[in-house]
Amino acid sequence: MTPAQTFPFKPFLSDNAAPVHPRLWEAMRKADEPDNPYDGDALSAELDAAFTALFGRECAALWVATGTAANCLALATMCAPHGGVVCHREAHIEVDEGGAPGFFLHGAKLMHADGEGAKLTPESVVAVIDPIRNDVHQVQPHAIAITQASEYGRAYSPAELAALGAFAKERRLGLHMDGARFANAAAHLGGSPDAAARAASGPVDSLAFGFIKNGGMGAEAVVLFDPEAASQVRYRRKRAGHLQCKGRYLAAQILAMLDDGLWLANAAHANAAAQEVAAGCADRLLHPVEANELFVHLTEAERAALRAQDFAFYDWGANSARFVTAWNTRPEDAQALGKAIAAL
Amino acid sequence: MTPAQTFPFKPFLSDNAAPVHPRLWEAMRKADEPDNPYDGDALSAELDAAFTALFGRECAALWVATGTAANCLALATMCAPHGGVVCHREAHIEVDEGGAPGFFLHGAKLMHADGEGAKLTPESVVAVIDPIRNDVHQVQPHAIAITQASEYGRAYSPAELAALGAFAKERRLGLHMDGARFANAAAHLGGSPDAAARAASGPVDSLAFGFIKNGGMGAEAVVLFDPEAASQVRYRRKRAGHLQCKGRYLAAQILAMLDDGLWLANAAHANAAAQEVAAGCADRLLHPVEANELFVHLTEAERAALRAQDFAFYDWGANSARFVTAWNTRPEDAQALGKAIAAL
Amino acid sequence: MTPAQTFPFKPFLSDNAAPVHPRLWEAMRKADEPDNPYDGDALSAELDAAFTALFGRECAALWVATGTAANCLALATMCAPHGGVVCHREAHIEVDEGGAPGFFLHGAKLMHADGEGAKLTPESVVAVIDPIRNDVHQVQPHAIAITQASEYGRAYSPAELAALGAFAKERRLGLHMDGARFANAAAHLGGSPDAAARAASGPVDSLAFGFIKNGGMGAEAVVLFDPEAASQVRYRRKRAGHLQCKGRYLAAQILAMLDDGLWLANAAHANAAAQEVAAGCADRLLHPVEANELFVHLTEAERAALRAQDFAFYDWGANSARFVTAWNTRPEDAQALGKAIAAL
Amino acid sequence: MTPAQTFPFKPFLSDNAAPVHPRLWEAMRKADEPDNPYDGDALSAELDAAFTALFGRECAALWVATGTAANCLALATMCAPHGGVVCHREAHIEVDEGGAPGFFLHGAKLMHADGEGAKLTPESVVAVIDPIRNDVHQVQPHAIAITQASEYGRAYSPAELAALGAFAKERRLGLHMDGARFANAAAHLGGSPDAAARAASGPVDSLAFGFIKNGGMGAEAVVLFDPEAASQVRYRRKRAGHLQCKGRYLAAQILAMLDDGLWLANAAHANAAAQEVAAGCADRLLHPVEANELFVHLTEAERAALRAQDFAFYDWGANSARFVTAWNTRPEDAQALGKAIAAL
Repeated sequence: MTPAQTFPFKPFLSDNAAPVHPRLWEAMRKADEPDNPYDGDALSAELDAAFTALFGRECAALWVATGTAANCLALATMCAPHGGVVCHREAHIEVDEGGAPGFFLHGAKLMHADGEGAKLTPESVVAVIDPIRNDVHQVQPHAIAITQASEYGRAYSPAELAALGAFAKERRLGLHMDGARFANAAAHLGGSPDAAARAASGPVDSLAFGFIKNGGMGAEAVVLFDPEAASQVRYRRKRAGHLQCKGRYLAAQILAMLDDGLWLANAAHANAAAQEVAAGCADRLLHPVEANELFVHLTEAERAALRAQDFAFYDWGANSARFVTAWNTRPEDAQALGKAIAAL
Repeated sequence: MTPAQTFPFKPFLSDNAAPVHPRLWEAMRKADEPDNPYDGDALSAELDAAFTALFGRECAALWVATGTAANCLALATMCAPHGGVVCHREAHIEVDEGGAPGFFLHGAKLMHADGEGAKLTPESVVAVIDPIRNDVHQVQPHAIAITQASEYGRAYSPAELAALGAFAKERRLGLHMDGARFANAAAHLGGSPDAAARAASGPVDSLAFGFIKNGGMGAEAVVLFDPEAASQVRYRRKRAGHLQCKGRYLAAQILAMLDDGLWLANAAHANAAAQEVAAGCADRLLHPVEANELFVHLTEAERAALRAQDFAFYDWGANSARFVTAWNTRPEDAQALGKAIAAL
Repeated sequence: MTPAQTFPFKPFLSDNAAPVHPRLWEAMRKADEPDNPYDGDALSAELDAAFTALFGRECAALWVATGTAANCLALATMCAPHGGVVCHREAHIEVDEGGAPGFFLHGAKLMHADGEGAKLTPESVVAVIDPIRNDVHQVQPHAIAITQASEYGRAYSPAELAALGAFAKERRLGLHMDGARFANAAAHLGGSPDAAARAASGPVDSLAFGFIKNGGMGAEAVVLFDPEAASQVRYRRKRAGHLQCKGRYLAAQILAMLDDGLWLANAAHANAAAQEVAAGCADRLLHPVEANELFVHLTEAERAALRAQDFAFYDWGANSARFVTAWNTRPEDAQALGKAIAAL
Repeated sequence: MTPAQTFPFKPFLSDNAAPVHPRLWEAMRKADEPDNPYDGDALSAELDAAFTALFGRECAALWVATGTAANCLALATMCAPHGGVVCHREAHIEVDEGGAPGFFLHGAKLMHADGEGAKLTPESVVAVIDPIRNDVHQVQPHAIAITQASEYGRAYSPAELAALGAFAKERRLGLHMDGARFANAAAHLGGSPDAAARAASGPVDSLAFGFIKNGGMGAEAVVLFDPEAASQVRYRRKRAGHLQCKGRYLAAQILAMLDDGLWLANAAHANAAAQEVAAGCADRLLHPVEANELFVHLTEAERAALRAQDFAFYDWGANSARFVTAWNTRPEDAQALGKAIAAL
């Protein structure tokens, strides 16, 4: 990535750069009353039921401050320190989490699979794990981690998830989903909030359900469909310094997001903005646009030209750039970007 | 501790139960503009200078979400996995952080010292470390951790800190301060914000400067007086999942606290409220009241009587209770509590 | 401990100082043929059956080079990184293993119980674990570790072991036995090798069965009565660098020890020598002598006098000394030591 | 690898399958006298000086039971838990040590470089580390690990080592050498024991000097050219359960190997045997033969034909096999293998 931009700018740098949604501010202010510390408050107590209703199957949900923590806490329940987690070679947990899985999983190994659009398939996992000798000299796979939407903004379809779930079950591997942009994948798949959430999560054992990139301030949810795992994560969250003193402000954000499907509406907005941009640069796209990220072929000179017009974005290798839309991206900005690229 | 209370109540349960100070809300709202993610924003960039000014010596300051993380990230820079940290037997890191030091320090050992009021002295540390044989069969001490104010609400004086600092230097041990209630200790020692901060921190190598119990929402500062340690903590913070996506909201809280000495004023308020309570129960106090916590001898029946009057607090063993005041404790509530105890 | 002694001496310093038993040399030389590496050899394959026969219940047995590794590999199967192991305050794993449990158990906590003769009872464990609040702020106990014979040379009786086993089961805690001097305890309890082994191990879930202090060169056995644990330990042993290339030489030592009860005979010899010494200093003993260690009240001057007579031993605090007998201790040396102490 | 072979056979399966050299047996028997436990004995005390003399520069040398432990203990001194070690994609530490680096280095990351013959060059390391962004989201490289002889039996020349050493120094990376077959590389480079050892080690910071595959029983040496690292390893060795009770038997093996250059003579013998084999299959070799390993193109049918003649070896993928010679390989067996392959 190139050094970050000076603001103000036309904001396609990152969905992390977007502000907090007004309804979350309201919810946090409403939570600004005395209540029990940590996760003993009334709002935190609502999480399990809220997510169980959303997904239509029993689960536990815990707030944490980051997707990194959410992913690693979940993975630690399904991969022993001497085991391995198969993930895509370009997965965020491999490339951009500063070695956090090594920390939370006490030295477990990430095993690198390939796959188009940074997505895994049973076949691409097989290609990694079948050559592993079943002896103690080689680390054995314990789990699979996928990203929904993927690092290239691609969504897994329900059929693809079902296939991975069946494969994981057959091989007795855990299946975790990094959902930093889960909402964007769900919005791509469509339907009501419930239907979209179920379609996008499929049969995973755990999900890091991201809210921060989607209008939150500092709360993600670790969703655990295995009760034993949930109990373990409660202890591990504290041990990792992630049990915040005033959890009610995190719970408030998450509940506000779930309320009336705000999470899905925000993501649908961002996805639509991405489509506006895509309309102007279809021939330059490195990946189909299914969520809120665009990877666009652009030379250095072209990128400079766009930056001269105040568009902010990260370089992506030598000849392309990444643009990200967010819950607050203005349609006119998205159109302007699309036109600017088309005009290059 | 007994099961937590139903709200509303007269709130002496925990300073974590208090709401967020209005000036922090303002600051967060002001920060609600697009900016670079993680700690690349303009506010996060101000922290090092702000704390360097406050303490009058070069330091780095990083936000994290919890005191647990702040303590452990700092300690990991001064104690190798095969070393030990001397702390009080009743130190929070030993008793109430769910084993977090074992996690962040990769299995390093906490070594338990005694000391009146949960405070350490060079002598009490010597009693722990001098019997350790200097051979590889025994874990060697690498650091000392103290708590300011202590777990029993006691403040270290500048002279006590100087003695510990000199001792640590002589023995080549790191010296870390858990400052979950640093502000309350500083308010006890008195003076301007600068003077109070310097007096209360003395010559420590690192400080977990707490803001959350003092009116914050979810931001503490790890303050590192050793530049090499600071560089290491930046990597370790990410690795622990504590590099939040939208750090500007944490930086905003901390800067608002430092602004015009709000941190000290809040703590002075809470300390004063504690003195109001103490006035009513001086003969029952287990420890002198120097900060915002009171440990009061109370039988089970007496505690029940107080709870019947809607006072909320934790039991502290079989025959006493802990009361905590906060930045928002109303003087009339403090007086009422003092009188209620006196009337028992 | 005082600086180690110059040899030759009358060897009561440590059973680790004793040489290797001739029958083990024979067995190793016999194993000096090409065979499969690691634990793929014919001798290593015999271990599970040999120990299953000895203990009369299904178990797996793996060689490792040290008791430290044996203890820690077993404990790691019953205590999660976020859990705790209750052990005696003076247990070897707490005091003299250089923090190895923190390493192998990824930061789990040792919880210190008291108990006469460095032995635990259900009551002494209760005193440690019952005050632990059942919440995530405090580390929860996952296992109990006892030492047979204890660090003060005391043997647990079958009844004591049964009580601990029932307690552990009731509380769902694992029960591990550090048997660095298991043979000496078994010899104290008496009977045939089978009977003695069963009596001395009781209902433990795992045992670090020590051979090195008892005439071995470099092989201990981790004995696991839980098949799932055994499978895990096979991987963890490799990961800890304890899967030796030429395991047949370790298996040979262990099998030679089991052959015809050599392990018990060696220990009985050492125990008898300890009784010879004890006969001369019964009034000075700090602990009853039930194995091969004696803890004897001796002033500094008295210790000097003994050393002047070429007796080698470690100081044990300011006013006592530890003497250890071994499989090769000559009765005349033991008697000489007893007399020398009596004559002081 | 295919399931291991039944013995007796013509032994090209592994140098780990070879017995112990007679001079090591003599040395161990000579060491079979009482001495101080652990590494307090007279023989262990000789190691630092012996290796300092051999390498012509100050170093510390510690025995351990396995190359896995030797590599990981050394690497842990040069790579923090949040750092990375660059190694070849097919390096033993990556592929065949059961995740041990993840354990000993507390979750540090192995970074996979390519390179002909499983050897690294500054260029191949650059290709891995230069794309790493210098920010906390990506694990930063701390060290480089190379294998001498490499996993494909290739030796680094002094010039190649000098280039890697200069590169590591420039980039402030540690440089560690896995020398499981260091002796074979040294024998390939030639000269007196001193000259060969210096040529083969070049400017590395640490070396896992292997003896077991070269006629030892259970002792390798961690050689540390940095005194601070050596001090740390002494503690870490104990903590990893690798400080054996009776270290004199390990020291005896190592000193016997160094005595009169036995280590080099044994390796030269094995290398010569490998050349005998190579003479019969030059056209089938996948890699030049510079040490004691041969990687030979052989179809499944051809491998079956060889096994029918009692040759033992591991399959190496679908269409090749690995043959290993050892200090005791009989020339006639090596010639017979060469002829048998030639005759296929």
